[in-house]
Parts: sequence; C-alpha cells; structure tokens
Amino acid sequence: MIFTDRELAYLKTQGLGRLATIGPTGPQLTALGFQLNGDGSLDIGGVALGKSQKWCNIAANPAVAFVVDDMTPDEPGAVKPGWGRGIEIRGVAELLTDHEPPAYGGDWFGREVIRIHPRRIRSWHLDPEQDEFTRNVGSEAAL
Amino acid sequence: MIFTDRELAYLKTQGLGRLATIGPTGPQLTALGFQLNGDGSLDIGGVALGKSQKWCNIAANPAVAFVVDDMTPDEPGAVKPGWGRGIEIRGVAELLTDHEPPAYGGDWFGREVIRIHPRRIRSWHLDPEQDEFTRNVGSEAAL
Repeated sequence: MIFTDRELAYLKTQGLGRLATIGPTGPQLTALGFQLNGDGSLDIGGVALGKSQKWCNIAANPAVAFVVDDMTPDEPGAVKPGWGRGIEIRGVAELLTDHEPPAYGGDWFGREVIRIHPRRIRSWHLDPEQDEFTRNVGSEAAL
Repeated sequence: MIFTDRELAYLKTQGLGRLATIGPTGPQLTALGFQLNGDGSLDIGGVALGKSQKWCNIAANPAVAFVVDDMTPDEPGAVKPGWGRGIEIRGVAELLTDHEPPAYGGDWFGREVIRIHPRRIRSWHLDPEQDEFTRNVGSEAAL
C-alpha cells in the first residue's frame, strides 16, 4: 500500500478533498468527496461528472493534485493541535466512462468516475515521529 | 466589497485555505493560512515564501485558484448540515517581495507575500436563499 498506516487512518476520517485540475485559463479547484481504493488509487463520482469542467480539463490534461486536510483538533494522540494536517497527492487522473460509482454517492452518482493514480505523496502533522513525509510512488515518472 | 456578507462571515471563521498553482508537470496544491484584505484581495505569507515551489510557479504563471471549505456543522443557521460548504476563488496572484507580512504568521513570516486578486468567485451552501452563487468580479477578464 502506497499510504502509511497513519495516512490511511487519517483518510478514513475525512469526507472531503479538493481536486485541482488545469483548465484553459488556469487551475480549477473543487471540493468533493472521494473513495480510497485498495490499490491506493482514489475514485471521485458525481451526478453528471462527464459534463463537468473538471472532466473536460482532465481530458485535455490528466495531471491533477488532490489534497485532504483540516485543522488538527485538540484530542489525544493529535500531532500539533491547532495546526493544520493533511495529505497532498499529485497524480494522473483516468476518466472511466462506465464504472460502478463510488458508494459515498448513494444512488445519485452516474457511471462516470474520475480515478486518481498517485505519483507523489506528501503528508504533514500526521505522524509524531516526523513532521512531514514526501515521496514518489508508483512505477511512472514522478510529477 | 466583492464578497457577500455571508461569504465574509464564513471566511472570518476559517483559518485554512488551499492554493492551486500550475507547476512544470501539473497542478500543485498547498494548504495554508490567509488574510482577507479590505479590497477583497487575499494575502498569503510564509517563512521562506520566495524559495517555495508555489512562488516559482506563480512567477511563471500567475493564474491561481484558492478554496476555503469545510463540512457544514450541525448548528443553528447552518445551510445543509452534513454537506460541504465553501468558497472557490479563481484569480491572478501578485508576488510582493518587500511587504508587511500578514498578521496570522506572528513574527515568523518574511516580507515576501503572495496576493491573490479574485476574478471569479463561487460559493456554495453559505446562503439559505441560494445553493450556489457564481460570478465574475474585478475589472479584468474572467478566468
């Protein structure tokens, strides 16, 4: 698995991520839900995803970034309460046009799915042993 | 003011935003604090901002996106508790090399500041009267 145990545990507590794509005039940034797959890829669903700007952007340029982060709550085991914590993923997005939608959308989502294949992962303030952990992942060239 | 009263009230409760810039191989996405200025621009500070990847990215391409969002808490007046809410800003970033740093950094920040000039604003689930509010702002062409 390309994520550490701490990163996995964190991802499972978070319902929202932010997807950055490159549009015709600059970056586009959308807050959305996500599903983590067993191989470390992430699936994003939607009601009419194939008609969305992010879909068109990815069709033209599959390089994406995705971040899951929040303010660290003041609770037992938390690293640096009151600071931010999270995971940034840079990767390549694949457009699936007829795929089982991720479960978090209930019956609302269509069969168009954006799948993110991570190439570089950076996490911060999730592990008391190290403030930050950055590495390339996957067999392709890093982004 | 380019933000609505509800958007302003929301921005004042949030300490974190996410900045998307365009790098040499794809989008870069960073979670960071921000300061809202009186004219609707936003300032971002840092310890060694001029050496950061985001700074270099903006120097090459000033088009940016910035999002402030969270899960809507279940509290009085909240629009769609349990859903996400937030503001996406597309704009042009200016690199200030010798400017008073934003106050949220205490004494840590240097005099390099990234200033975001919004060109397009989209907010969602902040106003019970309308689910979403998107418009172009500023005198320049929209992004």
